Amino acid sequence: MKNAVIITIGDEILSGNTVDTNSNFIATELKNIGIKVVQIFTVSDEVEVIKNTLKSAFELADLVITTGGLGPTRDDKTKKALADFFDDEIALDEVTFEHLKAYMEKRGRTEILERNREQAFVPTKCTVFQNHYGTAPCMMMPNGNKLSFSLPGVPYEVKPLIKNQIIPYLKQKFSLEYIVARIVSVVGIPESILADRIENWELQLPDNMALSYLPIGTRVKLKLTASGENEQFLQIQLEDQIQKLFPIIGDHIIAAKEDKIEKILAEILSDKKMTISTAESCTGGELAKMLTSNPGSSQFFTGGIVTYATEMKIKTLNVSESMIERFTVVSEEVAREMSEGCQKLFQTDIALSTTGVAGPGKGEDGKEVGTVYYSIRVKNHSHTFKLFLPHLERQDFTYFVSQKIIQDLVGILIEK
Amino acid sequence: MKNAVIITIGDEILSGNTVDTNSNFIATELKNIGIKVVQIFTVSDEVEVIKNTLKSAFELADLVITTGGLGPTRDDKTKKALADFFDDEIALDEVTFEHLKAYMEKRGRTEILERNREQAFVPTKCTVFQNHYGTAPCMMMPNGNKLSFSLPGVPYEVKPLIKNQIIPYLKQKFSLEYIVARIVSVVGIPESILADRIENWELQLPDNMALSYLPIGTRVKLKLTASGENEQFLQIQLEDQIQKLFPIIGDHIIAAKEDKIEKILAEILSDKKMTISTAESCTGGELAKMLTSNPGSSQFFTGGIVTYATEMKIKTLNVSESMIERFTVVSEEVAREMSEGCQKLFQTDIALSTTGVAGPGKGEDGKEVGTVYYSIRVKNHSHTFKLFLPHLERQDFTYFVSQKIIQDLVGILIEK
Repeated sequence: MKNAVIITIGDEILSGNTVDTNSNFIATELKNIGIKVVQIFTVSDEVEVIKNTLKSAFELADLVITTGGLGPTRDDKTKKALADFFDDEIALDEVTFEHLKAYMEKRGRTEILERNREQAFVPTKCTVFQNHYGTAPCMMMPNGNKLSFSLPGVPYEVKPLIKNQIIPYLKQKFSLEYIVARIVSVVGIPESILADRIENWELQLPDNMALSYLPIGTRVKLKLTASGENEQFLQIQLEDQIQKLFPIIGDHIIAAKEDKIEKILAEILSDKKMTISTAESCTGGELAKMLTSNPGSSQFFTGGIVTYATEMKIKTLNVSESMIERFTVVSEEVAREMSEGCQKLFQTDIALSTTGVAGPGKGEDGKEVGTVYYSIRVKNHSHTFKLFLPHLERQDFTYFVSQKIIQDLVGILIEK
Repeated sequence: MKNAVIITIGDEILSGNTVDTNSNFIATELKNIGIKVVQIFTVSDEVEVIKNTLKSAFELADLVITTGGLGPTRDDKTKKALADFFDDEIALDEVTFEHLKAYMEKRGRTEILERNREQAFVPTKCTVFQNHYGTAPCMMMPNGNKLSFSLPGVPYEVKPLIKNQIIPYLKQKFSLEYIVARIVSVVGIPESILADRIENWELQLPDNMALSYLPIGTRVKLKLTASGENEQFLQIQLEDQIQKLFPIIGDHIIAAKEDKIEKILAEILSDKKMTISTAESCTGGELAKMLTSNPGSSQFFTGGIVTYATEMKIKTLNVSESMIERFTVVSEEVAREMSEGCQKLFQTDIALSTTGVAGPGKGEDGKEVGTVYYSIRVKNHSHTFKLFLPHLERQDFTYFVSQKIIQDLVGILIEK
């Protein structure tokens, strides 16, 4: 198997200003063609640091991918570091300059600044992969039998460069081993007990397979990876091993194909031809967003409503005022009425509702921060639950709650 | 200024399964107390690799923070690497074991497995910071004048450990230089032209200040950082420099205090005592989620609706069927009617709407993937816009569109 190292360049990552999502994307794409990322370096925009990191990276891997530090501004240093490291010069590349001019003209920019022109200067030994969504070209440098690619840092530019240009190039250049993975989703069992139960199964796995545990909320994802030359054989091998898991922990397995809980749900809803809608308070749209995050969701997701104001719960979802007075707006009763009102409004088989206090301020009715009631209504039955998550920050709270609701719904639908 | 290195340990990050958000959080928290993260290493769960990385890290910085690899499962190796690196032994720590037992009992787990007990084994030279939200303790190891902290990898556990325990400890232990930053948000000017315009301003900045460019969508965030011993002086110094920017690019500045566009909007809405609601189609809840992502949003956000199904647009938002027939559901006209209906439904000063094709499949009416119309209705005026973003993946698409709408609304409200 080929190894790769990713170098993320940019003070904005080190200072905590920007979350690096490029590495994750690149690692996933490389893995799919059998290239393993063995290390990621995140370093500052300094020529010496970048050069030293390139050296370390080539010691660890055959393929080095850098992102960032190619912008037209003073704080971007990658190109200088590349030229120094490869003992090369930087010169204007006419083809790249023409591409750049066309790119800018298409966007109504006819005046090309010196600063823009500089972006068409590249190391003379490099092969340019033109960037169709930005002004910084991607540069490939040979290093003996090894290779480096330097990309800009903007995710919108990185994704098409990797997917449409670099991956096809690498696929063709190397004949690569396949890596295939399957995820088994396990619920209702703590990680440590799970690990104990499947220990013997894990020990008998063939040498080309590896297991890892990925806990997410109250679900544990068991990731089983196999590598080898024949993709179809690997698929069969994985399926065999997963089948062996069912007699051991089958009661706790909610999915063995899809990874994301919203995709697991999407598959079930499509199978059962059921529709769904949401009525949210404290999750503020996160639940709807999660349900619509994958293509094809319009087949089952009819609509959702975020009723932040109490009067909107009454007006649009028909929650009764007396219920709110008696139990407060953050209560099991209101959650249930919200899901009922939601089901009626959107005319769906399933309706989900949330009401709670995301914090950090207390709710109007004095309920503790981190309290949430949610209701899952399937046909004529409501299932209402409470969670108390005072330790989660606002964003994590809405995410955790939304994940958990979808997970519980999956459990209800497959009767586990 | 003190330097730090973060080591993220875990094959799940390298394989692209999990996005590392811990490093971002830790970097931000450290920066706030004047500790600069100079490098981040993301490495695999292998004892030798972790040891080598600890060595490199201590060569670069006084403070090393590791996350991950402390779980109760076979693939976690951090503790072994720590003991080896520091030439130490691992032994049961009674206090930690008592804490662990209490933690588990509180959660109804009375049976303590050998695997759980192992979590209370730590290097003998370490100081334990107890983990109140998980079973893996945080371990601090001295290394001459330097320090390392090893934390678990679960973000819910990392955040409170860092915020409530490690940061206060570091603050007390070192008397640290302050680093203060301000973000100036600039719109309507490309990064390269902006850089040209403010070049002279940038060159005259004092030595203790640094500028960086953070493009996000069609906005450029100028981040100005100052370091020194007197926090108040730094604040004044930053304000002075920012004031000097206004005569140069004031027309393009939409905010000079808050960083996130939704926070910039929140401040304006609070000032103007205006309320807002949303009616979404292709953004699927992202816009509502963004508006409610900060505390206090219930003061201005009344509610939102996601009308995925066309009939819901008609039923709840009163979009006219003839309009849909004439112009299709993805049109300027429907966007405008949605915002009008939304304003009526939620009785708000402002209403935002989106209708488009997030893809990857084409819309029912044959509109191209990446097409979106959105309408911003403020009091009695509707402003309707079109975007065409065929190169964005579904998740990036909804995010980009939502950002842009809020940015445009800010522009309208402050009349820029």
